[in-house]
Amino acid sequence: MKIDQLGEFGLIDRIRAALPAHGPGVLTGIGDDVAVLEAGGRTGGEADTVWLATCDVLVEGSHFIRSRIPPGKLGRKALAVNLSDVASAGGTPRFALVSLGLPPDLDVEFIDGLYEGLREEGTRHGVDVVGGNVSRSRLGMFIDVFLLGEASRGRVVLRSGARPGDRVLLTGRVGDAAAGVALLLDPALRAPEPYASEAVERQFAPSPRVREGALIGRSKAATAMIDVSDGISGDLGHICERSGVNACLRADCLPVALENRALSRQVHGDEWHFALRGGEDYELLFTAPPARAAELARAITAETGTPVADIGEILPPDRPSELVLAGGERVPLGGAGWDHFKRERR
Amino acid sequence: MKIDQLGEFGLIDRIRAALPAHGPGVLTGIGDDVAVLEAGGRTGGEADTVWLATCDVLVEGSHFIRSRIPPGKLGRKALAVNLSDVASAGGTPRFALVSLGLPPDLDVEFIDGLYEGLREEGTRHGVDVVGGNVSRSRLGMFIDVFLLGEASRGRVVLRSGARPGDRVLLTGRVGDAAAGVALLLDPALRAPEPYASEAVERQFAPSPRVREGALIGRSKAATAMIDVSDGISGDLGHICERSGVNACLRADCLPVALENRALSRQVHGDEWHFALRGGEDYELLFTAPPARAAELARAITAETGTPVADIGEILPPDRPSELVLAGGERVPLGGAGWDHFKRERR
Repeated sequence: MKIDQLGEFGLIDRIRAALPAHGPGVLTGIGDDVAVLEAGGRTGGEADTVWLATCDVLVEGSHFIRSRIPPGKLGRKALAVNLSDVASAGGTPRFALVSLGLPPDLDVEFIDGLYEGLREEGTRHGVDVVGGNVSRSRLGMFIDVFLLGEASRGRVVLRSGARPGDRVLLTGRVGDAAAGVALLLDPALRAPEPYASEAVERQFAPSPRVREGALIGRSKAATAMIDVSDGISGDLGHICERSGVNACLRADCLPVALENRALSRQVHGDEWHFALRGGEDYELLFTAPPARAAELARAITAETGTPVADIGEILPPDRPSELVLAGGERVPLGGAGWDHFKRERR
Repeated sequence: MKIDQLGEFGLIDRIRAALPAHGPGVLTGIGDDVAVLEAGGRTGGEADTVWLATCDVLVEGSHFIRSRIPPGKLGRKALAVNLSDVASAGGTPRFALVSLGLPPDLDVEFIDGLYEGLREEGTRHGVDVVGGNVSRSRLGMFIDVFLLGEASRGRVVLRSGARPGDRVLLTGRVGDAAAGVALLLDPALRAPEPYASEAVERQFAPSPRVREGALIGRSKAATAMIDVSDGISGDLGHICERSGVNACLRADCLPVALENRALSRQVHGDEWHFALRGGEDYELLFTAPPARAAELARAITAETGTPVADIGEILPPDRPSELVLAGGERVPLGGAGWDHFKRERR
């Protein structure tokens, strides 16, 4: 069997099954946004701090087109997608290692620009680039970032804690990055300005919700969290799978630009496609008990200025996941989103 | 300027200069085998344990030929080259994240074999694979491993501590991995068995000196250490550069197989070329004051069975680095070894 038949998530399940059970010091292993590790290591006692470790890569031809993205934005984005993973666990990012695969005929100026972006994004979020590696990669470029963050013990928010009745909350706005990709790939496609430029910029340079994530962790109010990298349908599906629940979303509560809905209808015949199944928004999708959800949402907006929408509810596993449209019609909500191997919605 | 004109080490210097000074919590940053980080993070006090972080990648076409290396050996090697970096700082490896770039038409069985190798090597050295990432890479495969290790504060051995008069010590035997590459790339080349098979095996599946490295760290006798990935000439050059010293090696003390010298003469016209300038031996090259060197070497062999050779001496910076041949002739010892971008000795 070829891996594109198995798909990204089938492959991850297979890898997880092939590895032995985790040993001491591993609080959370494969299957969440980050691994959670004892800070003191095997020899230490129970420190108040735990480490969060994650890695994510941008591959030329799969995640970016070298001639289309300015190197500074590529550097920022390579770090941002990892910052988003640490944020989605409620942690604070600290140290990064950067592993570069570089075609030998690459201009040195491209690397200068790339590191300017890495430095800018690192400084913005208090992250030190402490090491890395450069390798020849004749066939194309990749930027692989390994990020270490920290969190207080007991404040880490995993994918697995959502409970029936919890509200589903979402920072910011979704769908724009997917619209940006569509506009970049099809020059004939048109959207009004300034929306078109905003969407492309969002695709190039996402803003990870680092302050918001740390705040959500500290609040101890959230029961589960994930960052939106594959579309809210797929990422909510990951929370549901790990928590053993289902979910109901309300279309009229989704924070989506009107221009985005129009473009999504034009491209996919469905005004919610970009929002639900597009990727790379890097917003935070999280759940909280109804008694604490509104207060938590208000606190985030008050402290960071970022809007938080209540977009639905966690259901028990015997009720199917669904999307309630504005007119009251209910449509099944597919669990999965973008699959990097299958290159299609699942 | 193109990066292959600048070279691997020129590029690393440029990157280091582009980044801001390291902030709190970073004990050692870019420029050594590992980054050394405060285990407690910004919020913690001075824990007894420090973290070591490193990453190294194997890229198809640059580091391996997919059709030639069995997937299990590729998995073992991807972890081994990182284990070697932690060992060379005197630490104990603990946690790995594995970032894979995969062509979509790859057979799932290849991934199964790869993870069998990763699991085998991890279990052998007490390392847990706790996370990672899979990405589509249409143009070729890469396996990027991030490794976290730990060490006791004050026991980390860096490249920078060698002092004039120190002895230069080396575990095991060098040159074999380079001979293995030569035999793999040129089917017309011949070497006697079992040496030829041993050399190819050494190239496929290096044995990182994990126990030896931890022992050297605990001894507090070593002043500097590096693992031999670019050839002892180049790697000793890194120690000299970071320590502000030079070095003298004695050819008749180098632990090199006779078959290796013969093959090196045949390919490069120089019997020491593979040993001095070949890469990927993953032995440990370290320095220690004369009063402690012999005792340390004996302790390593007694505890691990690994031979340790005394191959030379650290010189003050005003004396040139040189190699003393068996007849007493002295030849300049170039500081640098294999450069992955220039693809030549520097």
